[in-house]
This record gives sequence, structure tokens and C-alpha cells, in this order.
Amino acid sequence: MNNLLQEKLDQAVSILQEKGVAAWLTFVRETSQVHDPCLDLILGLELTWQSALIIGRDGQRIAIVGFFDTDNVRNTGGWTEVIGYHQSLREPLLDALKRLDPAQIAINTSENDPAADGLTHGLYLVLTGLLAGTPYADRLVSAEEIIGALRGRKSPGEIARIRRAIATTEEMFAALTPRLRPGLTEIEIAALLQADLAARGLEPAWSREHCPIVNAGPDSTPGHAAPAHHRTQRGHLLHLDFGVKQDGFVSDLQRMWYFLDEGESGPPDDVRRAWDACWAALEAGRAALKPGVMGWEVDAAARSALVAAGYPEYQHGLGHHVGRTAHDGSTILGPRWERYGRSPYGVIEPANVMTLELGVAVPNRGYIGLEEDVLVTETGAEYLSTPQKELWCI
Amino acid sequence: MNNLLQEKLDQAVSILQEKGVAAWLTFVRETSQVHDPCLDLILGLELTWQSALIIGRDGQRIAIVGFFDTDNVRNTGGWTEVIGYHQSLREPLLDALKRLDPAQIAINTSENDPAADGLTHGLYLVLTGLLAGTPYADRLVSAEEIIGALRGRKSPGEIARIRRAIATTEEMFAALTPRLRPGLTEIEIAALLQADLAARGLEPAWSREHCPIVNAGPDSTPGHAAPAHHRTQRGHLLHLDFGVKQDGFVSDLQRMWYFLDEGESGPPDDVRRAWDACWAALEAGRAALKPGVMGWEVDAAARSALVAAGYPEYQHGLGHHVGRTAHDGSTILGPRWERYGRSPYGVIEPANVMTLELGVAVPNRGYIGLEEDVLVTETGAEYLSTPQKELWCI
Repeated sequence: MNNLLQEKLDQAVSILQEKGVAAWLTFVRETSQVHDPCLDLILGLELTWQSALIIGRDGQRIAIVGFFDTDNVRNTGGWTEVIGYHQSLREPLLDALKRLDPAQIAINTSENDPAADGLTHGLYLVLTGLLAGTPYADRLVSAEEIIGALRGRKSPGEIARIRRAIATTEEMFAALTPRLRPGLTEIEIAALLQADLAARGLEPAWSREHCPIVNAGPDSTPGHAAPAHHRTQRGHLLHLDFGVKQDGFVSDLQRMWYFLDEGESGPPDDVRRAWDACWAALEAGRAALKPGVMGWEVDAAARSALVAAGYPEYQHGLGHHVGRTAHDGSTILGPRWERYGRSPYGVIEPANVMTLELGVAVPNRGYIGLEEDVLVTETGAEYLSTPQKELWCI
Repeated sequence: MNNLLQEKLDQAVSILQEKGVAAWLTFVRETSQVHDPCLDLILGLELTWQSALIIGRDGQRIAIVGFFDTDNVRNTGGWTEVIGYHQSLREPLLDALKRLDPAQIAINTSENDPAADGLTHGLYLVLTGLLAGTPYADRLVSAEEIIGALRGRKSPGEIARIRRAIATTEEMFAALTPRLRPGLTEIEIAALLQADLAARGLEPAWSREHCPIVNAGPDSTPGHAAPAHHRTQRGHLLHLDFGVKQDGFVSDLQRMWYFLDEGESGPPDDVRRAWDACWAALEAGRAALKPGVMGWEVDAAARSALVAAGYPEYQHGLGHHVGRTAHDGSTILGPRWERYGRSPYGVIEPANVMTLELGVAVPNRGYIGLEEDVLVTETGAEYLSTPQKELWCI
């Protein structure tokens, strides 16, 4: 069994014990069509027919899968019992539940955390249909807390992989800087990074059309837009939001350049003031980020620092988990806005890996956006990335 | 707007009219985490915050998305109204529904069709929470039929792309044949095809570890297993199940080789008899495949032909839709087994593109598996692939 799968399956059992949940059931089908993100943590394979992956608090790990998938699941080495079926999973599923007789069965459904919400509504109806008339029908609970802990508490192997993805990204930014000059379009700059990705045989951290996000100058809207025809120009800012996927784990960083105008030896005052205010706010957020606090408290520390410095609130959250995906689910370091649901109320834990990101628009210059990746320790949060404390001037 | 998106959005409106459904709502969030397959048909982008994509029978197409995604959605050209929000989608969603006042709101949930089941259970609860106390709460219906028709009725642009993916796959099989010889392992044969894929800059049609599936000789289990150490050998069969993804569309084909033994000029009788029985069964299935029949009827025609020839039933369905994915949802040409739910009861329509696949194990020789891709016309089914009517002998 590969080490990462071993680490996460062991962790899953201890989280069930800690949360007092008897069993966790991941119920899926045709996972290359709709993919439950939990599969990457506990299996690392696609499954075809209806499949039930049951992890018990006592350490049992029972996989009930279509007959043609049994060899693959067995070969992962992660499952103590692999049961193949031909025509219906009903009988082996009910039989396994009868043997385990779990007081609670946690399923992958969550209103708040997309990464803990891999069970589709149709499959939920299939499952409740299979369990109808059995004692297990009334024992379903949400696995939100289990999945949040399992995804959020990065194992040593996961942290090592995220560090490598970040290091690669920093190398790529360093290689990009000498190629930047006034007059390049956002599309051309994106193409430089994408060519470097291809040369390294890597994937972008999120969808290719929007990774990197590139904003050149004041006419370019920051956000999730694709690179466009805006050109870098003296006296303007250049903003990149970029990450790579390496060995299954991603980075997520923003970096900034300023194109010096005639006679300038550094960024002008308006840019420098905004830069310093952003950094002070980000550091205020980092200071608030430690085990035991809620996500919204961390966001509020940074948000209020930025507002106190005279700049408007950023219209997003301060940060999110990073791991197998750039938005790695669970707790958000975000304001208590309706669109975030309960996710800002999650509690920070050691070994969480998160982004810290915020920004302000500088009139006539462009957008300043900062984003660093940090690891939560027992007492605080330390940088996994090399923080960009100074604007890079071209 | 790209032509394919235009084709599918126009088709969606006419399917709503045909089915008498007032509006279709695709409700998603963080789609790079859990991806509703319908997004590929109607948008072609990932979305971050809770987003509602509403298509009305009258042709209105309203997208309510997070503010940072608005430019991207607008740039697709497919949506008549794009509404961005900052803190909550509640108000713009209820406002749009009030304006449309649809008698039915179809949502992406299905017990039978994974491709029509992209709405997660947690998001379903969020949606019913948003609609609680409004007249729309009781108007939710399943979009299964709409999505099945939209995915299943391939547009001209989609058929052209599938044809190209099939042609590429056939080129790759042709290039592979002269490189085959006794003594190669399944892993080595898979590596040859994967190197060719890489050289062409293409992706496999399904997960890389199992595409191609390779079965050399009688000790190799057909199914979804990864290539292993079994070696090709004189007197044995070699079976490949393979497809490519090109321009967003896939092929799915099985091809067969026989390694001539000393003194043989063609396949021996046991192999030839099984081959002929498989082909007769596949052709019986193709003869039954036409608009208006149910999926299980097509499967039954092939299945009974194979059994009548004295061979055991295959333990899977005869075929499935092919398109953006190898298992493209909707109707299955499969037996009425519980694991297939209602999907074998779907009705075949013109412009469906489907696989026809079945096989038998030949003792001491290996597995014979046939798979071709066909297009349903007004009157029958024609091959999109070049059917392999003869075993390829090495």
C-alpha cells in the first residue's frame, strides 16, 4: 500500500474514534462521471458500479464494489475485506452492516463543505431505498466533521508534497521575472507559465484557462477571469495568481510586479502605501491563525486591519485549505456571509495548510493581491511559501 | 460563442418544449471539487460560489454566479442574462424565479443516470432551504429526461468529434500491431499505447491506470484491472480495451490479436467458433438497435444469441452511450439487473452514439472481447468504427 493511503486510512480510523462515530460509508458509482473527492483520500481509484466503502471505528475497512473492480481495490492494500458483486450490491451491503451493526453511519453529505458533499442526491435516494425497512435507515448522519478533519489535518506525506509544489511554483515565478517587460499582454504572460508547466510535465493547480490568472494594469478585473489583451506598462502593476499540481498536491500563490516609470527607482507612494497596508492586514490574519480559533475570527483580524488603514474590504474570504485541490474544502477563513454557510465557523487545527490572501485596487496602477500558503502549528502559523515582502520591480 | 455550446443550448430549449418542462435549473458550487457533468454541456467552465444556471422553455438563459465568475460566464456568449452576486445568491435567485414563474423546475437528480445526478445531497438541502416558504419549493422535478435527451442526442459537432477520436484510436491500433510479438507483458503493451498517446498530446478516454485494459492469455482476468505481468504467447489471445479523448470527446473500442502457434496459418477452431459466436451476437444486438426500442431489448437480442450458440452470458451490459466520457450516462443497453436501476428501460433515439460490446473466455487461449461504436440513425445503427470482423494474427 502506498504510504499516503496508509496514513489517511489510519487517520480516518482514529478520527472516527475521536468523534465517537461508529462507521463511515462512502457510497459512489461511475466516479469518472461524478467524483466524490473523498475517494482520493481513501482509495485513489475510480469505481464503476454502485460501491460502498465502509470504515469502522474498530479499524475494519470493507469495500463492496462491482466484480470487475475487485482486483484493483484489493491491490491498493488498504481494505481489509473486498467483496465483489455481479447484479446487486444490496445483499453484501446489508450483510456487512449487519456484521458491523454501527450505531451511526456517517455519509458524505454537507450543506457547508463541498469537499464533504460528494454523495449525489440521486444516490442518497438509492441508499435510503436500500436501507428502507432495516434498522440502519435511521442511523445516517453527516460525515462533514470526519471528512473535514481527515482532509484538513495534513499528514507528513501530504505536507511534504505541498512544500514541493510550492517550491516548484516559486522557481517558476523566479524564471518568469527576467522575461517580463512592458508591452506584454496577459495572454502572453500566461503562455510563458503554461509553457514552463508543460516543460516540467506538470498540471496547473486549477482549470487551465484560468491558471494563471493575470491582471496587467488598472483596466484588468481581478477575480477568476481568463487572461485577456491588457498589456503591461510602465507605472502599472502586474498581478499573478497561480499554482501547480505536483504528485497530486497543489500550491496557490499570488505574486506582484511593478513596472518602474521613467526616473523611478522604486514603487511610487500610492502603490507602496497600499502594499504596506495589505501586508499589515495579512500579517494580522496570520497572527490570529492558530488552533482553536474559528475561521471567521482570522478573516476579521485581517479585514479590520485593512479597513482601519483606510482601504475597502476585500469581497472574498481571507483564506482556504490547500491540499489535493486549491480549494480543499472544510473551514473557510471567511466572513459570516450567507454564501459561505457554516464554513467560517469551523475551528482551526494543527497541521491545517491554508492560504492567506487579500488585496486592494490602486487607482491608475492596477490590483495588488497577496497570497501565501501557511502551515498551522500547535501555537501559530508558519509560512510554507517564501513570503513576497517586497514588490518585484522591472 | 463556440458552436458546440450553441448547439447544446439550442437543443436544451427545444427539449424543454418537447418534454413540457418550464425551466431547468443547474445548481452547483466549487465545481472543480465536485463537478456536475451537465456543466460541460451548457457552460464549459468551472464555477466557484453557489451558482444557478436557469434555462427556460421560452429560450431565456439566466446565470446567477459569484461576482468573480461573471466575466467568464458572459464571455461564453451562451447566457442571455448574467447576474453576479457578492454575499448571497438568495435574492437574485428568487427574483429570477419570480420573473420566470415556472410551473416546473427540473433539477439534476436521478437515481438511475449518474450523468443526470450532478446535484449533491448537501446542495439539494441548500436549494430547498433557499426555496422554503416560496411557491417554487413544490415545483422541483427531476431533470433526468431532459439531461438524458440532451446528452444522448448528439449534435453534428459532437458526432464529428467522436468520429475523429475513433479514427485516431484506429490509427493507434494499426501502429501497434507491427510492434506486437510473443513475450511482451501487458504492462509493456500498455506502455506502447501510452507513449503514442503522449506523442499525440492526447489523454486516455478513462483513467490512465486502466486505459488501455490489456489481457494476454487465459490467466488474465478481463474487466477493469490494470495491466499486469502476463505475457503474450503463441497459441494465446491478446485483448485490448482502449479509447482516447480528443477535443473533449472519446472513443471506446476493444481489439483482438491471436499469436499463431507453430504450423498454424489462422486461428484454431475453438477460437474461431467463439469469435463467430461473439460476432453473431453483436450483430444481433446491432440489428435490434433502433429508435423506439428499450435498452434492455437490445441487450437481450445479443445475450440470447450468445447463449443460443452455447456460450455463457456476459456479466455486464451490451453497451452504453459514448460522448464526452466513455460511460456517457442515460440509457444502458443492459439486462434488467438491480444494479442498473431504470437505465435499461430508456428508449433509444436517433443520434445516440453507443458501444456494442460482449465477449467470452476461450479456455487455455484467453478472452475474446468485441467492442464497436455505433450511431443510431432513423432506421437502425451504423458503425462509426471500422468493425474488426477478423482476428488480427501475429
